[in-house]
Amino acid sequence: MAAASEQPGESKLSVRFYGQKMEKVDTAVVHLTAVEISLDVDADRDGVVEKNNPNKGSWKWGPNGHGAILLVNCDSEWTIKKKVDICDLVLCLSADLKDMSRMLLRTRGPSQLPEGYKLVMHISQTDSEGIRVFQSRIRRVLSQEVPYVGGVAVTEFFVEGLRFPDKDFDGLVTIHLSVLEPIAQDFPETPIFTDKVVFRMAPWIMTPNTLPPVEVFVCSVSDNYKFLKDMKKLVQQSGYKLTICHEYMNRGDRWMQDEIEFGYIDSPHQRFPVVLDSPRDRELGEFPYEVLLGPDFGYVTRVPLHEEVSSLDSFGNLEVSPPVTVNGKSYPLGRIIIGVAFPTTVQGRNMTKVVQDFLWAQKVQEPIALYSDWLCVGHVDEFMTFVPAPDRKGFRLLLASPDAAYKLFRRLQQDGHGQAKMFDGLGDTEEIPLDDLLSNTQLQNENSYVQSCIDWNRDVLKRELGLDDDDIIDLPILFKLLEENYRAAALYPDMVNMIVLGKNLGIPKPFGPKVNGRCALEAHMCSLMEGLGLRCTFIDDFASYHKKLGEVHCGSNVRREPFPFKWWNLKL
Amino acid sequence: MAAASEQPGESKLSVRFYGQKMEKVDTAVVHLTAVEISLDVDADRDGVVEKNNPNKGSWKWGPNGHGAILLVNCDSEWTIKKKVDICDLVLCLSADLKDMSRMLLRTRGPSQLPEGYKLVMHISQTDSEGIRVFQSRIRRVLSQEVPYVGGVAVTEFFVEGLRFPDKDFDGLVTIHLSVLEPIAQDFPETPIFTDKVVFRMAPWIMTPNTLPPVEVFVCSVSDNYKFLKDMKKLVQQSGYKLTICHEYMNRGDRWMQDEIEFGYIDSPHQRFPVVLDSPRDRELGEFPYEVLLGPDFGYVTRVPLHEEVSSLDSFGNLEVSPPVTVNGKSYPLGRIIIGVAFPTTVQGRNMTKVVQDFLWAQKVQEPIALYSDWLCVGHVDEFMTFVPAPDRKGFRLLLASPDAAYKLFRRLQQDGHGQAKMFDGLGDTEEIPLDDLLSNTQLQNENSYVQSCIDWNRDVLKRELGLDDDDIIDLPILFKLLEENYRAAALYPDMVNMIVLGKNLGIPKPFGPKVNGRCALEAHMCSLMEGLGLRCTFIDDFASYHKKLGEVHCGSNVRREPFPFKWWNLKL
Repeated sequence: MAAASEQPGESKLSVRFYGQKMEKVDTAVVHLTAVEISLDVDADRDGVVEKNNPNKGSWKWGPNGHGAILLVNCDSEWTIKKKVDICDLVLCLSADLKDMSRMLLRTRGPSQLPEGYKLVMHISQTDSEGIRVFQSRIRRVLSQEVPYVGGVAVTEFFVEGLRFPDKDFDGLVTIHLSVLEPIAQDFPETPIFTDKVVFRMAPWIMTPNTLPPVEVFVCSVSDNYKFLKDMKKLVQQSGYKLTICHEYMNRGDRWMQDEIEFGYIDSPHQRFPVVLDSPRDRELGEFPYEVLLGPDFGYVTRVPLHEEVSSLDSFGNLEVSPPVTVNGKSYPLGRIIIGVAFPTTVQGRNMTKVVQDFLWAQKVQEPIALYSDWLCVGHVDEFMTFVPAPDRKGFRLLLASPDAAYKLFRRLQQDGHGQAKMFDGLGDTEEIPLDDLLSNTQLQNENSYVQSCIDWNRDVLKRELGLDDDDIIDLPILFKLLEENYRAAALYPDMVNMIVLGKNLGIPKPFGPKVNGRCALEAHMCSLMEGLGLRCTFIDDFASYHKKLGEVHCGSNVRREPFPFKWWNLKL
Repeated sequence: MAAASEQPGESKLSVRFYGQKMEKVDTAVVHLTAVEISLDVDADRDGVVEKNNPNKGSWKWGPNGHGAILLVNCDSEWTIKKKVDICDLVLCLSADLKDMSRMLLRTRGPSQLPEGYKLVMHISQTDSEGIRVFQSRIRRVLSQEVPYVGGVAVTEFFVEGLRFPDKDFDGLVTIHLSVLEPIAQDFPETPIFTDKVVFRMAPWIMTPNTLPPVEVFVCSVSDNYKFLKDMKKLVQQSGYKLTICHEYMNRGDRWMQDEIEFGYIDSPHQRFPVVLDSPRDRELGEFPYEVLLGPDFGYVTRVPLHEEVSSLDSFGNLEVSPPVTVNGKSYPLGRIIIGVAFPTTVQGRNMTKVVQDFLWAQKVQEPIALYSDWLCVGHVDEFMTFVPAPDRKGFRLLLASPDAAYKLFRRLQQDGHGQAKMFDGLGDTEEIPLDDLLSNTQLQNENSYVQSCIDWNRDVLKRELGLDDDDIIDLPILFKLLEENYRAAALYPDMVNMIVLGKNLGIPKPFGPKVNGRCALEAHMCSLMEGLGLRCTFIDDFASYHKKLGEVHCGSNVRREPFPFKWWNLKL
């Protein structure tokens, strides 16, 4: 039949039966009904649901790939922040619908299907845990009959993702639409045609320091007025938004970096930021859910059931590299970096498995595990960061380096500044002349140990990010080991623990020895960064952060623009 | 340093320090020790452990891929079939070692490492659930110090896989080897060098009918003497081994197809058959573990914890296609085929999720789900099979077809054989003249329903296997619906439920109407198969299998040769 029918059985086929001697024995009429049916999605990823894409039933990565995309509907369109089960509500907010993927049932045929025929949408039990399907703006349909609309009709569905890819969910879900045929009274109906579409759940994506900032977050606590003032100045100069989390919400917890990690989810039809809430859950614990979650701002968390949460679960221990290419393999969204107890100790602290599993399952920013358990606080941001650069790979890896510090300090001593003092004029902290610092063999031993820990991580980073030595800048930073556990903490403000806002760096003010009236550490830092076109602003975090074993980066967080690169174009 | 040291610190570097006026101030001597260390595996997959393969730390599919391979050590080298935890035993059987992957620690250096330095092997907690590492033939080492052997040394390890890829295990495991450096008294040791190797666990692979048989299995029960005799003759004629499971073991359960599925695991160094034991666990339940499991014969099962086991968990409902290419995507190991309740019923029977998850996780034979719940027994082997063919894609899909049966019978009626009888001379079964059979409208309705169920599966198979109509042969088979549940069973012996032994087919003897003294169904079947160079042997399974709702295929099983194609060469 060349076209869909306008009435059931309107096309007829006459059959005449002839006998052996060509005499007419009988006649029969077959009534035919043609119905065109297509379940359609945006399989070519251009934001528009095309008609009957031949690839809609499978999913393939890459620029020549295909397959529709779903977002986990993890934002909240309600201003009242209650845990509302939206499937129990009449879905009337078009704001929510725009996060969902459109799915169209296109039919063309008579005003009614022949008697007893029907359309059924079917989702397997496993897949139905990952999605919900809404018809039009009101009804929820799932594994049940779909009304047939006569003539040339388009029935609109909206598909909502419910869960992120994880260890036990590869992110793919399939929706089937079948035409069921009645055979006879009491018989089960049978499918005579099934169309299917496949979606992949969009992964959660992190944003490296090289992406443009949008909004900076810091906490206001009782004793960080000066820090806040400096940060405000830096952020406003740079032209970004500063959001302050006040004490009624942070309840004295100043570690804005550690409670949350900003990321985003992306699809051809919609994208929005999503905060990953750490299982750390200290006094800032309510902030991401109560303040950040909102319209077009998503929220996801992982709660360990049987694991102990440690300091390594704070998200100062969760970073991401800029895009890299390693031995010909490209990572256009960079690689996630976490710190673990690997490889020396069996009994060390670790990031919880539920969070690690979540990170690995996103697939598009294949993680690298570094060794950070040698640090007292144990976060990778205590010894490394990335800054943008105009040349080479577009960035530099900055590493804390006791060797670089000793080299700088010895040169100063040789130049006659042996009596210049660390912590000069800080007041409540004992000043240390460079001569004393350099003659302290215990401190040398400790920093030799720290350097070897960082060197090991340096090797891993070079290998896993495809870096040369020229891609790395060593910053002069000394550590000390705490007596109680032989774990390391920065001796003076840890300059690598900086906030990166485009070309502006907010760096912990190191209070180094003064040479000709200027802090030698600041001068050295500036000379290293200026070559990259970066401006250094030194922020005094000594009393309010450094003494509490954190610095500027630990005390701030930055929401950044998403990558221009689309994750589905990755060649996995 | 150009070469490894023979003594610790044997190479010396003299450093002279000069003052401002070039006067000598001091001298120092740095003692250097060079040690070459490489943890090596068969990353190029040629069965030999090469030296320091640059790709040993990652895994890539395909003929240009790389990465070492592990076998799950799921066979048993003991003749006493007890569940022995081999990690608690002294590992002294070289038979077991040859299933494991060799891993070599190659070192070159002084007779001892400098004082306090040591080698440590490390496996993450997650990965350590998937493997065990044995050193030499005796000791077990895991996440602990590895003795350093001086000079040019090779320390041999054997790595044993413990679990198959599954929903929560992607099959990849990493082993690290680090050199730890002592810094000073009381300080933690730090890694100064880490080497790593990656293994992938070999998947469980099924064998389609087109692969050469090795061994045929059937059960001996009280009433199947004639069937056994016919099978014995067929198998011996074909030149294969016949193994009979006797009644003390099968305890009256004749359904050899349903309790087990034969497959294999493969690596560059070793391969062996592995039986997948169904959770069906009826009277044959002990057979795979007690009889099949043995030296170089592996065993794997999946036990549902919270799911009900149904008839769809029998492995007559688990088949595999020959190799196919679908829209340019090749499946050189074919595709697994299972039957489920999809898509009409939400409350239908299904294959348990634990088994489905296992099948999907093997990755190399991407499964297809058919609709088999319309059948009383509910197995895909009741309406489909594959036979080898000399032309086209190298095989034909055979489908049961009520339409083909009616067409054949009507032709016979027209040719004057309306009084020829179904079940002619069977004795205890009522004979049915063709005229009566053809005038039974209830039977026609039922078969119209069955045909539509099969047609739906035909569409899916054509699409998912990339088949044309010419790749499919319809076999004349009628079904009836059981009154109690409206589910289908074959009216006469279901010829598609055959055993395929190379070019010899063992087909349920259909007892169709006789024309000129020969069964018209057999004649038709022979004419269809002869064109493919296949020989039909009809086996009387009427009383002993057909009447109990099964046939030849349900009552037998075939272990086949593995594919010549190596799974790691798949482009996934």
